Amino acid sequence: MTSFKQELIEPRSLIDQYQRVRRFTESLCEPLETEDYVIQSMPDVSPTKWHLAHVTWFWETFLLASRQANYRSLHPQYAYLFNSYYNSLGQRHCRPKRGLISRPTVKETYEYRRYVDEHVLAYLQQLDEAQMAELAPLIQLGLNHEQQHQELMLTDIKHVFASNPLYPAYTEYKRPGVTEVPSLAWVSFPEGVYEIGHEGNGFAYDNEGPRHKQYVQAFQLASRLVTNGEYLAFMEDGGYENPLLWLSEGWATVQQEEWQAPFYWEKRDGQWWALTLSGLRAVDPAEPVCHVSYFEADAYARWAGARLPTEAEWEVAARTVPVTGNFVEQGHFHPTPLASAPQAGTLTQMYGDVWEWTQSSYSPYPGYRPSAGAVGEYNGKFMCNQYVLRGGSCATSLSHIRPTYRNFFPANAQWQFMGIRLAREV
Amino acid sequence: MTSFKQELIEPRSLIDQYQRVRRFTESLCEPLETEDYVIQSMPDVSPTKWHLAHVTWFWETFLLASRQANYRSLHPQYAYLFNSYYNSLGQRHCRPKRGLISRPTVKETYEYRRYVDEHVLAYLQQLDEAQMAELAPLIQLGLNHEQQHQELMLTDIKHVFASNPLYPAYTEYKRPGVTEVPSLAWVSFPEGVYEIGHEGNGFAYDNEGPRHKQYVQAFQLASRLVTNGEYLAFMEDGGYENPLLWLSEGWATVQQEEWQAPFYWEKRDGQWWALTLSGLRAVDPAEPVCHVSYFEADAYARWAGARLPTEAEWEVAARTVPVTGNFVEQGHFHPTPLASAPQAGTLTQMYGDVWEWTQSSYSPYPGYRPSAGAVGEYNGKFMCNQYVLRGGSCATSLSHIRPTYRNFFPANAQWQFMGIRLAREV
Amino acid sequence: MTSFKQELIEPRSLIDQYQRVRRFTESLCEPLETEDYVIQSMPDVSPTKWHLAHVTWFWETFLLASRQANYRSLHPQYAYLFNSYYNSLGQRHCRPKRGLISRPTVKETYEYRRYVDEHVLAYLQQLDEAQMAELAPLIQLGLNHEQQHQELMLTDIKHVFASNPLYPAYTEYKRPGVTEVPSLAWVSFPEGVYEIGHEGNGFAYDNEGPRHKQYVQAFQLASRLVTNGEYLAFMEDGGYENPLLWLSEGWATVQQEEWQAPFYWEKRDGQWWALTLSGLRAVDPAEPVCHVSYFEADAYARWAGARLPTEAEWEVAARTVPVTGNFVEQGHFHPTPLASAPQAGTLTQMYGDVWEWTQSSYSPYPGYRPSAGAVGEYNGKFMCNQYVLRGGSCATSLSHIRPTYRNFFPANAQWQFMGIRLAREV
Amino acid sequence: MTSFKQELIEPRSLIDQYQRVRRFTESLCEPLETEDYVIQSMPDVSPTKWHLAHVTWFWETFLLASRQANYRSLHPQYAYLFNSYYNSLGQRHCRPKRGLISRPTVKETYEYRRYVDEHVLAYLQQLDEAQMAELAPLIQLGLNHEQQHQELMLTDIKHVFASNPLYPAYTEYKRPGVTEVPSLAWVSFPEGVYEIGHEGNGFAYDNEGPRHKQYVQAFQLASRLVTNGEYLAFMEDGGYENPLLWLSEGWATVQQEEWQAPFYWEKRDGQWWALTLSGLRAVDPAEPVCHVSYFEADAYARWAGARLPTEAEWEVAARTVPVTGNFVEQGHFHPTPLASAPQAGTLTQMYGDVWEWTQSSYSPYPGYRPSAGAVGEYNGKFMCNQYVLRGGSCATSLSHIRPTYRNFFPANAQWQFMGIRLAREV
Repeated sequence: MTSFKQELIEPRSLIDQYQRVRRFTESLCEPLETEDYVIQSMPDVSPTKWHLAHVTWFWETFLLASRQANYRSLHPQYAYLFNSYYNSLGQRHCRPKRGLISRPTVKETYEYRRYVDEHVLAYLQQLDEAQMAELAPLIQLGLNHEQQHQELMLTDIKHVFASNPLYPAYTEYKRPGVTEVPSLAWVSFPEGVYEIGHEGNGFAYDNEGPRHKQYVQAFQLASRLVTNGEYLAFMEDGGYENPLLWLSEGWATVQQEEWQAPFYWEKRDGQWWALTLSGLRAVDPAEPVCHVSYFEADAYARWAGARLPTEAEWEVAARTVPVTGNFVEQGHFHPTPLASAPQAGTLTQMYGDVWEWTQSSYSPYPGYRPSAGAVGEYNGKFMCNQYVLRGGSCATSLSHIRPTYRNFFPANAQWQFMGIRLAREV
Repeated sequence: MTSFKQELIEPRSLIDQYQRVRRFTESLCEPLETEDYVIQSMPDVSPTKWHLAHVTWFWETFLLASRQANYRSLHPQYAYLFNSYYNSLGQRHCRPKRGLISRPTVKETYEYRRYVDEHVLAYLQQLDEAQMAELAPLIQLGLNHEQQHQELMLTDIKHVFASNPLYPAYTEYKRPGVTEVPSLAWVSFPEGVYEIGHEGNGFAYDNEGPRHKQYVQAFQLASRLVTNGEYLAFMEDGGYENPLLWLSEGWATVQQEEWQAPFYWEKRDGQWWALTLSGLRAVDPAEPVCHVSYFEADAYARWAGARLPTEAEWEVAARTVPVTGNFVEQGHFHPTPLASAPQAGTLTQMYGDVWEWTQSSYSPYPGYRPSAGAVGEYNGKFMCNQYVLRGGSCATSLSHIRPTYRNFFPANAQWQFMGIRLAREV
Repeated sequence: MTSFKQELIEPRSLIDQYQRVRRFTESLCEPLETEDYVIQSMPDVSPTKWHLAHVTWFWETFLLASRQANYRSLHPQYAYLFNSYYNSLGQRHCRPKRGLISRPTVKETYEYRRYVDEHVLAYLQQLDEAQMAELAPLIQLGLNHEQQHQELMLTDIKHVFASNPLYPAYTEYKRPGVTEVPSLAWVSFPEGVYEIGHEGNGFAYDNEGPRHKQYVQAFQLASRLVTNGEYLAFMEDGGYENPLLWLSEGWATVQQEEWQAPFYWEKRDGQWWALTLSGLRAVDPAEPVCHVSYFEADAYARWAGARLPTEAEWEVAARTVPVTGNFVEQGHFHPTPLASAPQAGTLTQMYGDVWEWTQSSYSPYPGYRPSAGAVGEYNGKFMCNQYVLRGGSCATSLSHIRPTYRNFFPANAQWQFMGIRLAREV
Repeated sequence: MTSFKQELIEPRSLIDQYQRVRRFTESLCEPLETEDYVIQSMPDVSPTKWHLAHVTWFWETFLLASRQANYRSLHPQYAYLFNSYYNSLGQRHCRPKRGLISRPTVKETYEYRRYVDEHVLAYLQQLDEAQMAELAPLIQLGLNHEQQHQELMLTDIKHVFASNPLYPAYTEYKRPGVTEVPSLAWVSFPEGVYEIGHEGNGFAYDNEGPRHKQYVQAFQLASRLVTNGEYLAFMEDGGYENPLLWLSEGWATVQQEEWQAPFYWEKRDGQWWALTLSGLRAVDPAEPVCHVSYFEADAYARWAGARLPTEAEWEVAARTVPVTGNFVEQGHFHPTPLASAPQAGTLTQMYGDVWEWTQSSYSPYPGYRPSAGAVGEYNGKFMCNQYVLRGGSCATSLSHIRPTYRNFFPANAQWQFMGIRLAREV
């Protein structure tokens, strides 16, 4: 299979970037059989085929149909099938039924992509520089949107494969060099009024702004992620049996769902194994723990005598380190052990590996205004009963991440690459 | 596409029959795309791929594995994935999750069929006549079992296609010659003690026996099936709004499911259309009504001043006419209008077209004993809360049907080709 | 508390009978606190208060309001609150919400009873003999209806008390003299055409007729009911763990509901206890087993190498013995051990103690016609997915039972006094 | 009925306060019938009887049993029945089943109160001043706890009465003098670092601290609550039909629950009526809108071109006005129209009438630590997927409220007295 190397989206021509992102989407499908594209293993998961078509519909709808009076869709009903959640754009297919749709076939879906790519490229190539500049924000939104779905394609196919007792593997496992995990240290940050959020010329989602002041109390952040080994200690200490460690709703979930370990873990002959995109592997104590919910992250932190960071704390800290890490371009498709002991007082693994749960509810920044038009439905309407995660994961493109990036999921979500970084009061 | 002509299973060599039935199964898949094989659109529906593998597993389990110590399965976990409901044979995959399994692929499923076919044929060819005679009942059970799944493959893919807003079609529609439906007449049968059930040398399921006496009161049976036109009159008379026409549980279902017409019907611009295996067509008033539940059949009968026949009545009557009709071999895949006016006093459409609901709960005949061993789970354990249907449908093989044949479904089932024949007291 | 002695409804004056039945209803409430009247512990259960009012509504609706133009209801909305399931009589309160209604209070409910009683008696007293004769069937229907609800009041309050961890008791336990259970014998009946069903002048529900011929194969019936001791042997032999003993739907229920014993049984310190209307008692092996579903009765019979009788078999046999037994008038409110060894070849416990599951689905007799008018909704519309029970129970009035009496419940029902009598082929 | 006047809990003797709060709890029950005490009309609602016993259990558990070795409970199983959610204190009765418990009776429940009151008073009376001072925080917690349940008793009995088609009334309606609602004005507050949260000697819940700094942007707060008249304009403008006004989860709730108006509203003959504790009344356009969820409050604010305040904004503003308003002591049991036009630039209705939804997710303040021991389960474990409300309501005791008080409910809750105050950016 291919190497999944993706070059950065640099400020070269947007046309180049368009082609590169679209190509990368398809390269992620190379390990798949036709049958794999069809399945929706739970309501949160979408079939690969749906992702391929939906991102294409996004380009078609926002770039082609809304700007070219004479544009003709390949199949008008695709707008019904592949609209995700844009109420402004009319009726749409019911989300939990995406796995009931055998047609369009995978082949027809790729033809749809070809058709839209040709029209997008033809359209972009005839624009002059001013027109291109005016269109750049929309194109960058489309590229970032497609990158989000690249990540979902990976997390969703992982869930699909895990639903099959045959446990198919997506890729081969490349064992990283043996490492000893450096001990966890605490990095301190002083109290003060900080500016939080995005500002400036680069691309950002509307939910990252406006940049604004926040008072942040003095705090400490753990120098690295929590490992499987540490999480096993929590489990062995009865973490999943002690209600006093859990939020009330978390404890109710533990009991109802019979949670006993992170998602994708199973016990065989007394040992814990984890299902990965490389198949079933014995749990590696050096790897960052992954596929834990907000409830589990919060309970672990309480057990460890710490807490989760707020998103403001995380952002204040993350600005001090460069954006590098284990991203999708590495081709691991799984968090990896920390390669070497970090310098004292420095933060590691802030980007990549796993999305880090913060204790912050996903809510609008002061003065937040959603974008105008249908793209205004992109973010704002989800600001309820979700929690913010930061830093990207091993399934995220490096070029997709910024210190101000706000990802968000409900407190019981586990199927993304989600992990834990601790914080505490000074 | 092919013509779906299937020759009768005649008492030629069982090997011939095996090959013909197995081939017919696959010929039914010719119109399908790979993606179509994967989908389970409701718990009652199984993916085509599952049907193909399950019938193969049946041969492997009951013919090969249980009789050949050195038989090696192509893939031992298939026994887990493709066991339907045989508790005697160990753990199995959860029925409602059959649509979550992308692997084995369609190609691998056909390889599994090849593999088992080769072993079955090699095994049968080395048997002597006595051995073959001893094995004949099991082989015939396997052939009939596969024929049942041929029918389910058709009704299930119909449901899958109906779940897709694009409404794919399985086959082209061949409009039959225009016909006027002959008026419904009543055929009388005298009271008396009748013998009911199967006896003799031919194949029958265990639930068709033992043959036994029943006292049947004098009754009349309608000369033909109820048509769409007649059912529309029931609908227009408020049939779906009047609780007094319905069984209590039926009325609760009407309200909860918001039933307003037979399954697969939908109203567009004031007219009723029916989704068929040839796509969406205006409802043809001359066709037998189809895809109605027991509840609907019973309510219709009450509205019409009649009732459903008991299965004893049906069998007494059906023995008087030959087993012919609109079966799967015709390639209509839908009930068809009555071709010509029947002779006065004769029954038509008793076989084929649609399974006819009887008012009889599915229960054991006096003295019934399930077959020994795992095949004893085939019928007896379902004798609760189901109702008997008789006569076969347009998706049934002609060679599969007998006057004593007892099909059975829950009272709310609609997705089979199910219709209505009226009866009444003299 | 009172002794619950109820004299037989003899053909004395109907007015007498009316007063006696109405009085008995209220005497059954003497052990209750006001709070007990209010609760609905599952959708099948109705609050005592509701029963008291509903039977009163029945008299008001069918006797007073429909025959006296100037009758004024005490509270017109009671017709909405206390109609059970008569669609002919307009909208009604949703069944599962009967426990949300604190008003009318218990006191007001008794006032409603007083009010209707006065009007009924005044009305009946001014009728001449001919008018009374014409009205007799309706009055008898009303009396029998109220007796059915007397039984439900007992089974429902038992369920209410069982839902309370304090386990209140309804009555004191009177231990019957120690007995040894006679061994089970088989009583034989020859094959033949039998007449089944009610005929003649006495009261019967419409579902008991018309009397008609049935061919019954030769059969044997157990001389007595299955005991707790025998049922414990089934449990200890893994009865609840072996799917091969169960109907498919029964096995699904066992697993989903985690059934391990009859309803109301619980294990404490390794011993089985049963919650009775006299509180928690150690399971008495000599008592007839009780509170078992159709599924459990059927599985037990299969385990015992027998089967359940058909309702025709039961009726043929029951006609040979007098209608006596442990009825509600005894004041046991629980099945009791067989007092003494029966004469060889005789049937015991055919009436009273527990309703006996038959294997017969509840369906219309040939030629069945529901009564005209709203009372036609009494029986016929429930003839689907229910099974017939025969013989009455320890909560039934003796005067309420006949050999032709058909009770019916779904296959998973347990909260009535339901038990097992075995049958088998000769 | 009584006047429900409750004197303030002033710093007189705690024994006085204990007696006054306990007495007030019972005075709230005076309008009830015994049957009313029993019912749980939805899982969130508890029966009055349960409230009476649970607050008593709280005193028994935290004051008597934990401090007096020789204390004997009146009935040991009450600890199981009346523990609400304290995992530290052992197993407890399942919340949604509180309405299935007829015993203890209402009379026994009052006896339980008497018993505990006697023991509490005897215990308190023998304490010296130092001991009393040490115990004061716990006693005040118990008093505030009981006051919270006084409010719940009112909102819960309202829900119970609303579940009864007879619509019983709790109290008579006293129409306030006719008023014209003053027009809504905006009151401005400057940006800056503010101190938020409780500090000092008075009682407060642990979740109100620690007092800490927050940066608050300049904002404006509406001078009064949103009225029914204004909310009707939102409804008439299609507020419940336009998804673009709603949070995504809110819109899903609107569709699933078929919301069309505030809870307790119903349309009769084209006009809106509201069910109140004084029965059904035509909606009064001058009253503050009430029984709206967070979703509705948020959608209304968006429609009005404004937003909900954060809890920090609310607290900053609320500190500028005295704690007065329409509290439970007024005996209205419903929000009332604003009595007279406020002075320009002043805030009205900040306390009492309705709890005001803030846009803030309920989360721990920086440095928050739950109280030690079982009372630590009081607040912290609910800090997930709930939103903060401020200011108290017409069912709250005046003595119960502070500017720092944080109430919290899930975003779909409606059954409390919940309303809307708008905020906006400057």
